[in-house]
Amino acid sequence: MDYDALREKLFGFITDRKLKALQLELEDMNEFDVAEFLTDLGANDPKSMATVFRLLSKERGAEIFAELDAPEQEWIINSITDTELAGIIEDMYVDDAVDMMEELPANVVKRVMRNATPGTRDIINQYLKYPENSAGSIMTAEFVDLKKYMSVRESIARIRRIGENKETIYVCYVTSGDRKLEGVVTVKKLLLSNDDDVIEDIMDTNVIFAHTTDDQEDVSEKISDYDLLAIPVVDKESRLVGIVTVDDIIDVMQEEVTEDIEKMAAITPSDKPYLKQSVIYIWKNRIPWLLLLMISATFTGMIISSFESALATQVVLVGFIPMLMDTGGNSGSQTSATIIRSISLGDIEFSDLFSILWKELRVAVLCGLSLAAVNFVKVMVVDRMLLGNTDISFTVAAVVCLTLALTVLAAKLMGCILPMLAEKIGFDPAVMASPFITTIVDAISLLVYFALATSILHI
Amino acid sequence: MDYDALREKLFGFITDRKLKALQLELEDMNEFDVAEFLTDLGANDPKSMATVFRLLSKERGAEIFAELDAPEQEWIINSITDTELAGIIEDMYVDDAVDMMEELPANVVKRVMRNATPGTRDIINQYLKYPENSAGSIMTAEFVDLKKYMSVRESIARIRRIGENKETIYVCYVTSGDRKLEGVVTVKKLLLSNDDDVIEDIMDTNVIFAHTTDDQEDVSEKISDYDLLAIPVVDKESRLVGIVTVDDIIDVMQEEVTEDIEKMAAITPSDKPYLKQSVIYIWKNRIPWLLLLMISATFTGMIISSFESALATQVVLVGFIPMLMDTGGNSGSQTSATIIRSISLGDIEFSDLFSILWKELRVAVLCGLSLAAVNFVKVMVVDRMLLGNTDISFTVAAVVCLTLALTVLAAKLMGCILPMLAEKIGFDPAVMASPFITTIVDAISLLVYFALATSILHI
Repeated sequence: MDYDALREKLFGFITDRKLKALQLELEDMNEFDVAEFLTDLGANDPKSMATVFRLLSKERGAEIFAELDAPEQEWIINSITDTELAGIIEDMYVDDAVDMMEELPANVVKRVMRNATPGTRDIINQYLKYPENSAGSIMTAEFVDLKKYMSVRESIARIRRIGENKETIYVCYVTSGDRKLEGVVTVKKLLLSNDDDVIEDIMDTNVIFAHTTDDQEDVSEKISDYDLLAIPVVDKESRLVGIVTVDDIIDVMQEEVTEDIEKMAAITPSDKPYLKQSVIYIWKNRIPWLLLLMISATFTGMIISSFESALATQVVLVGFIPMLMDTGGNSGSQTSATIIRSISLGDIEFSDLFSILWKELRVAVLCGLSLAAVNFVKVMVVDRMLLGNTDISFTVAAVVCLTLALTVLAAKLMGCILPMLAEKIGFDPAVMASPFITTIVDAISLLVYFALATSILHI
Repeated sequence: MDYDALREKLFGFITDRKLKALQLELEDMNEFDVAEFLTDLGANDPKSMATVFRLLSKERGAEIFAELDAPEQEWIINSITDTELAGIIEDMYVDDAVDMMEELPANVVKRVMRNATPGTRDIINQYLKYPENSAGSIMTAEFVDLKKYMSVRESIARIRRIGENKETIYVCYVTSGDRKLEGVVTVKKLLLSNDDDVIEDIMDTNVIFAHTTDDQEDVSEKISDYDLLAIPVVDKESRLVGIVTVDDIIDVMQEEVTEDIEKMAAITPSDKPYLKQSVIYIWKNRIPWLLLLMISATFTGMIISSFESALATQVVLVGFIPMLMDTGGNSGSQTSATIIRSISLGDIEFSDLFSILWKELRVAVLCGLSLAAVNFVKVMVVDRMLLGNTDISFTVAAVVCLTLALTVLAAKLMGCILPMLAEKIGFDPAVMASPFITTIVDAISLLVYFALATSILHI
């Protein structure tokens, strides 16, 4: 049974102060569900959340604590004793502890650090030094290491002895005396080998690994490409310092995608879930981009203004402006979204630029011609004949459709060039999405429109 | 060493016809990298790709074959003997075989099916019947099942005996005589227990599972929420019929995100990588949406046309149309992108509608007021004073800024209501993204603009 099904029962225990019954129920539940319950409880009544948290056994307490968000963690830290806090810190995986430290306010971090053992404190401090979003900052130190001279029997015995607190036991890492990574062996391989086989003979020496300074996106690409359960992380001296497991990478992937989607929609990325963002916080993440784009759009307005007198003689042209702008924006965002996504999936690289341009050029010609043709028929038949708008001459329709085709062409080429250039010069291509492309394409579209109108319609 | 580093060397072997050396090199490489090499080779020379494929050992051949895309798989199938084909089919995991069948042309599928054993054929046929994107269609039948009366010793012995061809051995499923799922036990738990412990006493009975008909998105949400390595899939009678492993789910997640991003950019989703899509294929996926949106945008044009005579007296108003349309579109897409992403992450539900509306309303008021204020100053100082555009009166500026604030309000509310309504009535919320919101908001914005202009400026 998941949390939603149990919710009422659990809250009933709280109302009736049946803490013993609640404790028994919680013991049977999944860590993730207990964390959800605590968060739910904390939203209304943080005090009883802390009380409920203290009902949990020590080991499960640490695991569930790691699943909570920073505000709930802070409440709990402030409600427990130093001894309890020390117990949690020591039981947490290093990557979870580091995640927490990065979110908590400074005074709480100080209290946590004061209660950690010197060894844990050193490791946490070291991890906090890795750049944000690097392999080092998301790795964990709890892995199983083996030596190449061990037998399978000895290795399995070692796993049984030290495996309890490891983040994964299924992939074991073979290291030399000076902690250099020499190979990798899975528990599957161990179980399917003979007890007397030696690790050196069965280990895989062609190890896929990451450096502490690698970007987390590259780490997740490797885990996903090579279907790994965990990837070893080495420092500059090729010493094994940690591992990143697939469950952590799934969270990283989700975060990266959310970040990309936010950037593509012209929002400063946030790492908080939407419902936890305050109104002011949301406003701060959105308003700079809206302002920037609004100011940019006034240039488009200036193009119109400079043709004001010409427009006054042919006001019929104004009616087509929304259609031209929207179609340009949509054409550009189709291409830019495709390119941005393909870049982040690693499907295309800068060296593909010309083949992509050639492809988009042909797509643009096809799309431009189809749209122009449909629009021409629509304008002549619906607008002119059926709706009787006699201001629309054949020449006006031709100017509109020619502009439309050229706008689609410009939009598709911009939508392909800008994200790839951004990637090339080290910017995030996701910023070169719909909003920016639209603003640029609007200006191009109107310039073309008025240039054609002036020369063909002589206005 | 990864494929990029080896590329030249491998192609050298081909040119010099050093097939033996190539075979040795390939044996040391990762399956993923070999698949990349074959794909690369196939792009220029499919014939030698098939030759190289036949250099691989039987087991590795099947694994690498599963990594290839449909066109390469087809080439290879057409170049190998029936016996070789039968070997590959039997060695492939069911989920990979099913994926392949769904992509291959009918005549190739027939040949593959003819060469499979009756047992494999039955399983594949059964899997092909599950709805697309359901848990049933992505699961695999290769899991380790245990009985609750077994000891840890017997269980480990069973894993060693049957584990070789299982997609994962790390999570084992405990089933009753009639194949009902009773519990789950990890290899970690087995290794950390005593040899004489009985499965029933150590298994976890609170199993997180999926139904064959569940959507793959729900399956990936469970795997990611509960940090699972694999999730069991049961049929209507609660019988265990398969499992979905985390590495398959990562691919599903990436596909789902790509699909969402494509829909948000008004493109019919595709499951082919961009570089493999033909120009016509891309055109087909994009043109219907462009046409639909273009036609919708003409309604906005009709709004302008109906105010044509009024506009002719105050042409200065036309210059602000692009800015109003773009800002409306951007405001709407910020909100819709946030809401769509939060829905697909499971962060918000329909029951949150009113709290979200209330939040977006306040954000919209803040954004609308800031934008209007900046715009007012910009219009009065830059456009009127510095650029000397005396057509812009105080009243004109007020109309523009009031319209701007109301546009932002409408955009943010639309951007929040439409995706949530879509989700509620069973449509994909991703379709209610920027392009559609923009089209609707454009119309609203212009209606407000002209209504205000007519009543305040008396045009």
